[in-house]
Amino acid sequence: MVKVGILGVGTVGASVAKILLENADIIEARAGKKIVPVLGAVKDLSKDRGVPIPLTDDPVEVIESADVDIVVELMGGVEEPYALVKKALEAGKPVVTANKALLAYHRYELQEIAGNTPLFYEASVAGGIPIIGALRNGLSANHIESIKGIMNGTCNYMLTKMIQEGADYDEVLKEAQELGYAEADPTFDVGGFDAAHKLLILGSIAYGIDAKPEDIVIEGIEEISQTDVEFAREFGYEIKLLGIAKKVETGVEMRVHATMIPASSMIAKVDGVMNAVSVVGDRVGETMFYGPGAGGDATASAVIADIVEIVRGNTGPMLGYKKGLESGLRLLAPDEIETQYYLKLKVLDRPGVLSAVSRVLGEHSISIESLLQKPSRLADRVRLLLTTHRCSEREMRQALQALKALDAVDESITMIRIEK
Amino acid sequence: MVKVGILGVGTVGASVAKILLENADIIEARAGKKIVPVLGAVKDLSKDRGVPIPLTDDPVEVIESADVDIVVELMGGVEEPYALVKKALEAGKPVVTANKALLAYHRYELQEIAGNTPLFYEASVAGGIPIIGALRNGLSANHIESIKGIMNGTCNYMLTKMIQEGADYDEVLKEAQELGYAEADPTFDVGGFDAAHKLLILGSIAYGIDAKPEDIVIEGIEEISQTDVEFAREFGYEIKLLGIAKKVETGVEMRVHATMIPASSMIAKVDGVMNAVSVVGDRVGETMFYGPGAGGDATASAVIADIVEIVRGNTGPMLGYKKGLESGLRLLAPDEIETQYYLKLKVLDRPGVLSAVSRVLGEHSISIESLLQKPSRLADRVRLLLTTHRCSEREMRQALQALKALDAVDESITMIRIEK
Repeated sequence: MVKVGILGVGTVGASVAKILLENADIIEARAGKKIVPVLGAVKDLSKDRGVPIPLTDDPVEVIESADVDIVVELMGGVEEPYALVKKALEAGKPVVTANKALLAYHRYELQEIAGNTPLFYEASVAGGIPIIGALRNGLSANHIESIKGIMNGTCNYMLTKMIQEGADYDEVLKEAQELGYAEADPTFDVGGFDAAHKLLILGSIAYGIDAKPEDIVIEGIEEISQTDVEFAREFGYEIKLLGIAKKVETGVEMRVHATMIPASSMIAKVDGVMNAVSVVGDRVGETMFYGPGAGGDATASAVIADIVEIVRGNTGPMLGYKKGLESGLRLLAPDEIETQYYLKLKVLDRPGVLSAVSRVLGEHSISIESLLQKPSRLADRVRLLLTTHRCSEREMRQALQALKALDAVDESITMIRIEK
Repeated sequence: MVKVGILGVGTVGASVAKILLENADIIEARAGKKIVPVLGAVKDLSKDRGVPIPLTDDPVEVIESADVDIVVELMGGVEEPYALVKKALEAGKPVVTANKALLAYHRYELQEIAGNTPLFYEASVAGGIPIIGALRNGLSANHIESIKGIMNGTCNYMLTKMIQEGADYDEVLKEAQELGYAEADPTFDVGGFDAAHKLLILGSIAYGIDAKPEDIVIEGIEEISQTDVEFAREFGYEIKLLGIAKKVETGVEMRVHATMIPASSMIAKVDGVMNAVSVVGDRVGETMFYGPGAGGDATASAVIADIVEIVRGNTGPMLGYKKGLESGLRLLAPDEIETQYYLKLKVLDRPGVLSAVSRVLGEHSISIESLLQKPSRLADRVRLLLTTHRCSEREMRQALQALKALDAVDESITMIRIEK
């Protein structure tokens, strides 16, 4: 019998305990041993968690209990769980965590501390989808060419509503908040930060890149409007919030932002709160992993899969990959990223403006791929919607500054990157 | 250093050797040890295999070589590889196989023989997609509710062409043969047998069902015509060849056949030669795994993933599940399957025929859900296209016999099952 202690018995923690009890038959059959939740740590002992396991308000008690063989960390936060996970690993106890923020900041220190003690984290990326297993194990023969993931259900739900129902951003956000898909302060989701934490974890497994959130481009979906959605549709794209990690000649690009992707691509077809991660390997080609990215039971499914692996005695390098293995595999600075761009500008409706805009782009070596001019709601303005050929982020940023400095161009320019 | 011997150096075997050599850096980083192909067995030594490893025409030499630590079986066939894999396992050598026919017939004997020696087979189902790993490990906390897989690229390519280009079956088959997607005798693919082998493997991992191909419904796509494709489109379905394993109250249904599925479902969006397997777990909900189901490099990617797992020392029950664990989880007989059906009948264009058809269906307790009457190419005939509410396969078969016995109904009735 293997005994599990749970730090943090909230939605996911309660699901872990319940599933271990309710699906005990099949879990034992697959793991080869009985797995039992024996102790949980919570902040507030007075709250009913609906699970029949003893609770304490001292997480260290869980870690130090002679009765606990495996520690599951589901507290959230960064520094407090870091100290606790460290303590558990130093005591030689295997740890399973679903905490993406913890790993976004401390995964390499934790790999170091863990040594040969298992530290598994399947649930930290894309909830119930076994994407970590796929990358660490299933695709291990491949150099990874790219990872593109829909890893935030809130954003995907909102974008899907905007696309399918013609709803505007503010309405959809309100609806998502009412349904519990978005927090009262939705920044962590709609600003791309949640997806960025997950991307950093995948970037380590695929490329051994040691980066923190502040090192990569992180943008959200707050600027997306119906005009953009309609333009995308017209030109055969869908708009998704993607986390992208991609090997290019000079290194690895990592970025999170709203992205126009061909409507025919598999990942463009992923709607609603669902998540999906497309992984292209140099040998296997494109694979995609689809499923629920959140929810107590779905996340607990991944947590328990890790526990089963530990009970089976399975290991492997925590991050699947040594740091800095492939020569030249450095993280590109945001300025070095190269891609295609979509721009939406509001400009004065008078002769010469279009030529001024295209001259500014030309001066920054940016050439226009397609262009659409539409009337604006303001009488003296028109909207210019355009896509560019590939250029660097540096050139684009400079061009945007120069465009905003033009008298005839309003300051509020929307820029969306395009991935083909 | 771990040394690999390869039985069968055809397309996949050559890819395994090449990738082990060309991606040696990343494979070593992930496995923790260097993995080297050292010897291959082929039938015809005179043929150039394009790989720099010594070859023999005696497979036993590979197994018995003191130099070979892991045996990879890629010969095809059933009884010959069975004897060889058995020999390797009895010698205590871990085996990796991509041979779905071997496993469709001998997986339980092999599990017995293997004991604690690893016998891995990720490549046997859906090529490069790590679906075995997902089922055995990633979803181990779940009772599996259903598996629905597009597991034959030939069929999916042909159906996609029929749907997207309005082409007819014979044209598309010819084209698939010219492109090398279909064999000169395409029966193994288009008849559903290839998909059935894969389904039997998944059915064991999910449910512990010990079945052989002859125990389950296996039908192909040979009867599908443009009329069916158009009807499906009109009623919001796509037609796919699916392998289905599904838990119902009375047991487990397992079947391979052309299926009408809602066009909005994720698996309906999988086009061309690509494969995908949708797995619904009682806790995780729906997940889907997508990628290339065939091809030398994609299949080799899965073979090497297994080798890496073995080198890491990872194990687990070969089939992930003891035989017959859950009480009542027996395989249903084909007659016991319950689903909805689509029927296409050619009937005489005269009064009373429609009423005769619906009376026969009613006599077998089958009620009609939707009905469409269309002119036929023959002047005195019309086509009846209809869908039914749920009924048992037994009732449907009996009703089909009775319908064929009617004077006014032609014998060539097309029946396609519907899955919602």
